[in-house]
Amino acid sequence: MRSAAVVGTGLIGTSIALALRGRGVPVHLIDRDPEVARTAADLGAGVVGFPRTPVDLAVIAVPPQHVAATLHEYQLRELAEDFTDVASVKVRPQEEAAELGCDLTRYLGGHPMAGREQSGPLAARGDLFRGRPWVLTPAAQTGAATVRRVRELAGLCGARPLVMAHAAHDRAVALTSHAPHVVASLVAARLMDGDDSQLQLAGQGLRDVTRIAGGDAELWTDILGSNATAVAEVLAEVATELGTLVDALRDMGAASPAVPPERYGSSRAHLASALVRGVRGRGRIPGLAPGGLSLTGAAAGN
Amino acid sequence: MRSAAVVGTGLIGTSIALALRGRGVPVHLIDRDPEVARTAADLGAGVVGFPRTPVDLAVIAVPPQHVAATLHEYQLRELAEDFTDVASVKVRPQEEAAELGCDLTRYLGGHPMAGREQSGPLAARGDLFRGRPWVLTPAAQTGAATVRRVRELAGLCGARPLVMAHAAHDRAVALTSHAPHVVASLVAARLMDGDDSQLQLAGQGLRDVTRIAGGDAELWTDILGSNATAVAEVLAEVATELGTLVDALRDMGAASPAVPPERYGSSRAHLASALVRGVRGRGRIPGLAPGGLSLTGAAAGN
Repeated sequence: MRSAAVVGTGLIGTSIALALRGRGVPVHLIDRDPEVARTAADLGAGVVGFPRTPVDLAVIAVPPQHVAATLHEYQLRELAEDFTDVASVKVRPQEEAAELGCDLTRYLGGHPMAGREQSGPLAARGDLFRGRPWVLTPAAQTGAATVRRVRELAGLCGARPLVMAHAAHDRAVALTSHAPHVVASLVAARLMDGDDSQLQLAGQGLRDVTRIAGGDAELWTDILGSNATAVAEVLAEVATELGTLVDALRDMGAASPAVPPERYGSSRAHLASALVRGVRGRGRIPGLAPGGLSLTGAAAGN
Repeated sequence: MRSAAVVGTGLIGTSIALALRGRGVPVHLIDRDPEVARTAADLGAGVVGFPRTPVDLAVIAVPPQHVAATLHEYQLRELAEDFTDVASVKVRPQEEAAELGCDLTRYLGGHPMAGREQSGPLAARGDLFRGRPWVLTPAAQTGAATVRRVRELAGLCGARPLVMAHAAHDRAVALTSHAPHVVASLVAARLMDGDDSQLQLAGQGLRDVTRIAGGDAELWTDILGSNATAVAEVLAEVATELGTLVDALRDMGAASPAVPPERYGSSRAHLASALVRGVRGRGRIPGLAPGGLSLTGAAAGN
């Protein structure tokens, strides 16, 4: 790769630019806020402004709902030969790019799976993507040369390219990130019902379950909205299971205290089976220590 | 307190015994598995076996569904003048104790809010309860002398006694521990649907949300079953919200890609409002750093 451009010099865009600069690739930095682009340049991420001749590859690093329009604009302005993006959803930007008449032969959607709690160029790190998956979602039209260039980009950033279909990617992030975020928010929202003394019983388990619910609500509204159908599918399955478990628990709660728990029969079995599926599902997360943990801050074992 | 007994020398029972021994109180250790009681004794938690004369206070440290029967048995055998327990649910053991004809004037239910990932006497620590809340749930019949003795127990263990009604306690643990556990399990169970490449996209957010879902399924079936009604109430509220959000997301997903997100209107507003309530609810957890975190392993900010 002889030259690159980054459009949107936030955390991800600037981190990519820093990684490329570290490998000697000249980078042009573009942001709708010139101050943000200058900050990235001051960090050594490249030079601010449009190149005189098209660069090899432009990385569109803007929020998902702006990817297609930004791609369309910079293809018309001939910023680069090839284009990619880094948005955390892939189906909708691809559809929007098609509707806008973008050149889909020179565009390959991507999603580097890395992030930090902080945002903005000052949080950027050239090694942010090292060893992380970098999803590539080629479409039928995507040219082989474009695929090679985006693979090279992932390699220059130290990431592992992982080819997926658009819908499989969006379903994957719905399963592993977006649906869990919604559920964590709903659990956290219920805490508005407790009084202060009740909340004093909160332990580490609750802190962990709700941690991502502390994330920026506006940003997450955009992310979830961009992947709404896939997230709705996962959440609908969770809702069905949850409804069944509410019935099972009500059944168990209605049983006389004198009835030994073994006699709740099918309700108890249903609850136990849901928890076992949870243990198994958690066991599928790569790189977890076997066994999992049971501490909830309440006296585990009681 | 001149003498005490612990029935059930697991993590919690042995930790209490160690704390009492550290303050010079003689402790008798009883467990249905003599080997487990001997292990606790070897750790310095007291002497194995029934005392010759009743001790001042017996701590019933067995799973919630066995609390009432154990209390009944050891009141008949005159193990102690006063009794308490450490179970993580309070309504049902109290009801069961009443049905069995226990002496409720000499019994005060308790719940020390501490635990560890490991269980059993070898995981016990004399300082496990230091600075932690220790919930006391006096009933109308509970004698003042019994309340004083259990308060003394909590004090000797370094804990902060916190008086609550039985139902308020059970609602509190449903909100802060039991319902979050069920929801974490359901999110984890959905991972059975993903293929291996999809699961490679799992980040720290998913690990956190599902951590407690790795807990022992049988133990948690007992805990949830013992507090079934309160857990069902919280989960029913989560299920209602979840159903509304699934509808909102489907509405947003069905909108044409060309429609700017600002135009999804009420569905988008509903989603945003649910996320904002999540941020606020999380902010009610005592001792959290302000702001909360948004990292999910996916590229935050995209």
